[in-house]
Amino acid sequence: MIVEMRTGSPDEEVEGVVQRAKSLGFGVQLNLGTNKTVIAILGPNTGQLDTDIFAVLPGVESVTRIMKPYKLAAREFKGEDTKVAVNGVEIGGKRIAVMAGPCAIEGEKQLMAAAMVVKEAGACILRGGAYKPRTSPFSFQGLEEEGLVLLRQTKRQFDLPVVTEVVDPHEVSKVTKYADILQIGARNMQNYALLTEIGKTKCPVLLKRGLSATITEWLTAADYLLAGGNENIILCERGIRTFEDSTRFSMDIGSIAVLKRSSHLPVVVDPSHAAGHYSLVPSLAKAAIAAGADGLLIEVHPNPKEALVDGLQSLTPSDFSRLMKELKPIAEAIGRSI
Amino acid sequence: MIVEMRTGSPDEEVEGVVQRAKSLGFGVQLNLGTNKTVIAILGPNTGQLDTDIFAVLPGVESVTRIMKPYKLAAREFKGEDTKVAVNGVEIGGKRIAVMAGPCAIEGEKQLMAAAMVVKEAGACILRGGAYKPRTSPFSFQGLEEEGLVLLRQTKRQFDLPVVTEVVDPHEVSKVTKYADILQIGARNMQNYALLTEIGKTKCPVLLKRGLSATITEWLTAADYLLAGGNENIILCERGIRTFEDSTRFSMDIGSIAVLKRSSHLPVVVDPSHAAGHYSLVPSLAKAAIAAGADGLLIEVHPNPKEALVDGLQSLTPSDFSRLMKELKPIAEAIGRSI
Amino acid sequence: MIVEMRTGSPDEEVEGVVQRAKSLGFGVQLNLGTNKTVIAILGPNTGQLDTDIFAVLPGVESVTRIMKPYKLAAREFKGEDTKVAVNGVEIGGKRIAVMAGPCAIEGEKQLMAAAMVVKEAGACILRGGAYKPRTSPFSFQGLEEEGLVLLRQTKRQFDLPVVTEVVDPHEVSKVTKYADILQIGARNMQNYALLTEIGKTKCPVLLKRGLSATITEWLTAADYLLAGGNENIILCERGIRTFEDSTRFSMDIGSIAVLKRSSHLPVVVDPSHAAGHYSLVPSLAKAAIAAGADGLLIEVHPNPKEALVDGLQSLTPSDFSRLMKELKPIAEAIGRSI
Amino acid sequence: MIVEMRTGSPDEEVEGVVQRAKSLGFGVQLNLGTNKTVIAILGPNTGQLDTDIFAVLPGVESVTRIMKPYKLAAREFKGEDTKVAVNGVEIGGKRIAVMAGPCAIEGEKQLMAAAMVVKEAGACILRGGAYKPRTSPFSFQGLEEEGLVLLRQTKRQFDLPVVTEVVDPHEVSKVTKYADILQIGARNMQNYALLTEIGKTKCPVLLKRGLSATITEWLTAADYLLAGGNENIILCERGIRTFEDSTRFSMDIGSIAVLKRSSHLPVVVDPSHAAGHYSLVPSLAKAAIAAGADGLLIEVHPNPKEALVDGLQSLTPSDFSRLMKELKPIAEAIGRSI
Repeated sequence: MIVEMRTGSPDEEVEGVVQRAKSLGFGVQLNLGTNKTVIAILGPNTGQLDTDIFAVLPGVESVTRIMKPYKLAAREFKGEDTKVAVNGVEIGGKRIAVMAGPCAIEGEKQLMAAAMVVKEAGACILRGGAYKPRTSPFSFQGLEEEGLVLLRQTKRQFDLPVVTEVVDPHEVSKVTKYADILQIGARNMQNYALLTEIGKTKCPVLLKRGLSATITEWLTAADYLLAGGNENIILCERGIRTFEDSTRFSMDIGSIAVLKRSSHLPVVVDPSHAAGHYSLVPSLAKAAIAAGADGLLIEVHPNPKEALVDGLQSLTPSDFSRLMKELKPIAEAIGRSI
Repeated sequence: MIVEMRTGSPDEEVEGVVQRAKSLGFGVQLNLGTNKTVIAILGPNTGQLDTDIFAVLPGVESVTRIMKPYKLAAREFKGEDTKVAVNGVEIGGKRIAVMAGPCAIEGEKQLMAAAMVVKEAGACILRGGAYKPRTSPFSFQGLEEEGLVLLRQTKRQFDLPVVTEVVDPHEVSKVTKYADILQIGARNMQNYALLTEIGKTKCPVLLKRGLSATITEWLTAADYLLAGGNENIILCERGIRTFEDSTRFSMDIGSIAVLKRSSHLPVVVDPSHAAGHYSLVPSLAKAAIAAGADGLLIEVHPNPKEALVDGLQSLTPSDFSRLMKELKPIAEAIGRSI
Repeated sequence: MIVEMRTGSPDEEVEGVVQRAKSLGFGVQLNLGTNKTVIAILGPNTGQLDTDIFAVLPGVESVTRIMKPYKLAAREFKGEDTKVAVNGVEIGGKRIAVMAGPCAIEGEKQLMAAAMVVKEAGACILRGGAYKPRTSPFSFQGLEEEGLVLLRQTKRQFDLPVVTEVVDPHEVSKVTKYADILQIGARNMQNYALLTEIGKTKCPVLLKRGLSATITEWLTAADYLLAGGNENIILCERGIRTFEDSTRFSMDIGSIAVLKRSSHLPVVVDPSHAAGHYSLVPSLAKAAIAAGADGLLIEVHPNPKEALVDGLQSLTPSDFSRLMKELKPIAEAIGRSI
Repeated sequence: MIVEMRTGSPDEEVEGVVQRAKSLGFGVQLNLGTNKTVIAILGPNTGQLDTDIFAVLPGVESVTRIMKPYKLAAREFKGEDTKVAVNGVEIGGKRIAVMAGPCAIEGEKQLMAAAMVVKEAGACILRGGAYKPRTSPFSFQGLEEEGLVLLRQTKRQFDLPVVTEVVDPHEVSKVTKYADILQIGARNMQNYALLTEIGKTKCPVLLKRGLSATITEWLTAADYLLAGGNENIILCERGIRTFEDSTRFSMDIGSIAVLKRSSHLPVVVDPSHAAGHYSLVPSLAKAAIAAGADGLLIEVHPNPKEALVDGLQSLTPSDFSRLMKELKPIAEAIGRSI
């Protein structure tokens, strides 16, 4: 951590900063420039220190963090790539994992039809939401536990692990009974009550990036889960909020390479929510694979025209099958399989 | 809702849209341009309709919402201004309500000292957090129920209503016993499990705007509370996330006038979180009052240098007293009091 | 264009809108809802109409544009893909065009060395800046005309067409003598004096997207060039400004699919400026190809450690050669060549 | 400037950074942490150094700038406030300067009528555009030199200094003959050819903030003008581009306090472009004054319903007169006049 003093700041103010750093157990190195003093605060855990601790002291102009605020999710903490095992499917390995299915579970027939398409096209995990966080209270809110039951039934019939969202910290243990992967939605990325509860389980988690979360904040949210003892974390890029309005969100394709550099956790991409329109999904899915993503989360609906939620961004069965075929050579071109 | 068909879209496709609209009970008006057909979907509740319902149909180029997706929070739904009564203090009336106090409750001495400053300077509500959602799991997380007990004790001693945050839907009933106003934090604005639970109470709520929430989404979140039966909602602008990094967030000063036009709910402004630095708080606080805000939420700490949370954006007692004196003539200049 | 009247707006106000539309030669269709009147303004050129023309009239609540404000760049205006011919190289065809070279021309030796690398690795166009728009007046501003002379010399020696930036409308004719493609920088995307001047030439243009330009604004800027008579336009996505700061800009990978849908113009991607760091460039370059871009603009420097401008985002010769080899199978996987 | 080395970076790499710093004439201070070495680069002009110079060297993890990249516009460079004298009007002094008038000059009658309103209501500078940078080539582009002539005529008749935009570097000398203040539009904030030309004059300049420019970039653009020798610079906040779409731009009210802290230059605010709608302008104008702005730039049109440009954000004469009356007590409340 670097503390820049104001020009002409007197010795007592410099000393105040030095004393605070020492009282917290940190080392200190003074850098005396011609105009101003810059103080380096040294030690292994300066990343977890709040910058305010120094910024409030008299004479301080600015405080700059050098170490990242996340720790357990960092590549520096764990050198080798984390691979998350989900009922025989590995996420983060050589094979790219495609998770697909409807946004919301609407009923047995719909879910079964979706599962069949997903299985036949070669995806390895079924997605489906039972609890749906909706922006409007007047929208369909999901089938809740009834949906979970359908999900388990479908999972068994098709031998497909399932991923589903949990929204309430007090329902974590219930959902864990049905799901192979717990999804934390974008709007809950910093719902710490929920993160803390899920951190206590060992259940694999898909942690979606918040709409306006920086990568640093996202990895710090992952630290909540890791600090609780859950190491089975899969990150999911799903687009960020920007000024551009021709897509629903702006997929941050650069996050994939940044994460591979900064973290050991696997990364999957959700092109459906980023695009908001089915016609844009294939282009984003291909880009994600080429950029190095470890998997995809794609919305597929047996009949998007009748979907209760997010129909416009759902692929039809035939579009999904075609996309899976098109992804295969791209995966191979970068030395992976799908 | 306006449905634009593709250029040269055949009659069957137009008919498909018309039939879907009619099947949902809406009226339809065709607008035949020289190049393309535009279909208006008419009815009182088109705002609550998901645009996807039409966007997925064959031949549809775009769907544009005319009515807003929120309903109960809209000025059109309720013409007169909502005034929220909090233990004798009215929010949304002629007098501007200043809520002040520490970000986090750290102990009895600190809270008492803060309350005394707040009371003496003329603020009417005490703020203080017992449950602190922190970006890092390694940071101080709040005193929890012990903090609530201190808050109630201080409230009685100084005869000041109190506002405090609730983060877990299952703690709503507990927090309601201690708090006069429940705060929903920015990161929980779309935590629907929490909104639903608070909507069931009649307790006044301070609904902070999400970091990247549009005003429309914010008012739609308010609809969750209103739809549950809780009409005592106070909106709180606290800055949005943008590319600018010289302030912690960018305070959206324009939101005040937009809300006054679009909604009947009172609006307060939190200049402390928007600024991120104590030296910028007074300018933002004055601007908020001049722009028409109904109140302020300001962080004040008896000794910011020792604050466990957000010390840099907290005002000292003397800075807060000076600010209160400076705000008074501005309030009077626009025909209000403080 | 859709004009929404306020609830309860009287007939005279509706009539005012109708009369204005008719006076401008547009058709009008009234949509009488239960609560409010919505007026559709119909005609082939409503996209080029300013929404303010109706929004200022009494009783108008909102005005929504259905048609896009751009016209000549639209897919609806020209169905087939535009292919730009540049001295024997075609941009927008089956073969993906890679343009590479140093950000700034620093001298003969540097430019020659770069050209050799670019040529040998299989790129088809050489890039190099002679006029450098720099954020600081204290930074290197480019070799100016001396750089153009070097560029021409190198181009002849290596038989590589060249792309270079022009920043002043009065230098367009001069730069045209040296360049095969004129580059319009991101900060000049809405420099209309410059656009107008370049629109008068027939010289191929690389129109970079502005840092905070929507795709609609970008295509409207292209309309300036097209309206002037220059049809040889290549769009270049180079990242947009967002809150994320781990990359220099956020590459809007979604823009590629959106542009292919909305426009007939070819699209190339500049992963170097988007990334800001050489280690992230390959991932973005691969993603761009997989997403459907028609080309790439990549910064390559014989010795990035000594580069005067943008060294950090420049690839070394060996990194560039490796990337070109890695791009080849991806191009083939999507049915193209490189 | 702080250079963070990678964990375990060998001595040669550290030495490489040290050597480069020394070769550029800078001092160096090593900070040896337990895990990694951090190198402080010391000297008076490190702010003007490109971070890439060190970031490209082997073993470097990150480079952080401590000093700001702007110099001449900085408060540290010049302690006292700059006051710009414009034909007897002072901008940056105790009296708040209101500049008002139509967006575009449409003709003699319109400009005269606007000037009369502006003068009578107590504004001290007339604004009016002769060259209009328009997003669409199909929109009205301004009266150009004819407009300048009208502006001079009106200025003489009403004894009001005038501000008008210049868009082409080669027209600077011409526009200077007519204008008392040259306006640099938001889209030209980084048009360096234009900045350089205007920097050579002594004519007062209104430098609008770019749509997506950080405050740091804005002040660095001001450095271009200052470095050229023009010290008469007025900064103008006019809203930044964000995801919020209920206003045309998001007025960054925080920029006023930040600029007062970081720079000696006066700041005026344009609430009209930020709002995009006349009904929101008064709230923003009041906020700007309360926040500490030195002036306002407001669009006023004798008949907004017939305006050729930006009618929706223009105030009518009576709305403007009322606003001026409402601003007076706010100015007095903060110890200023208007």
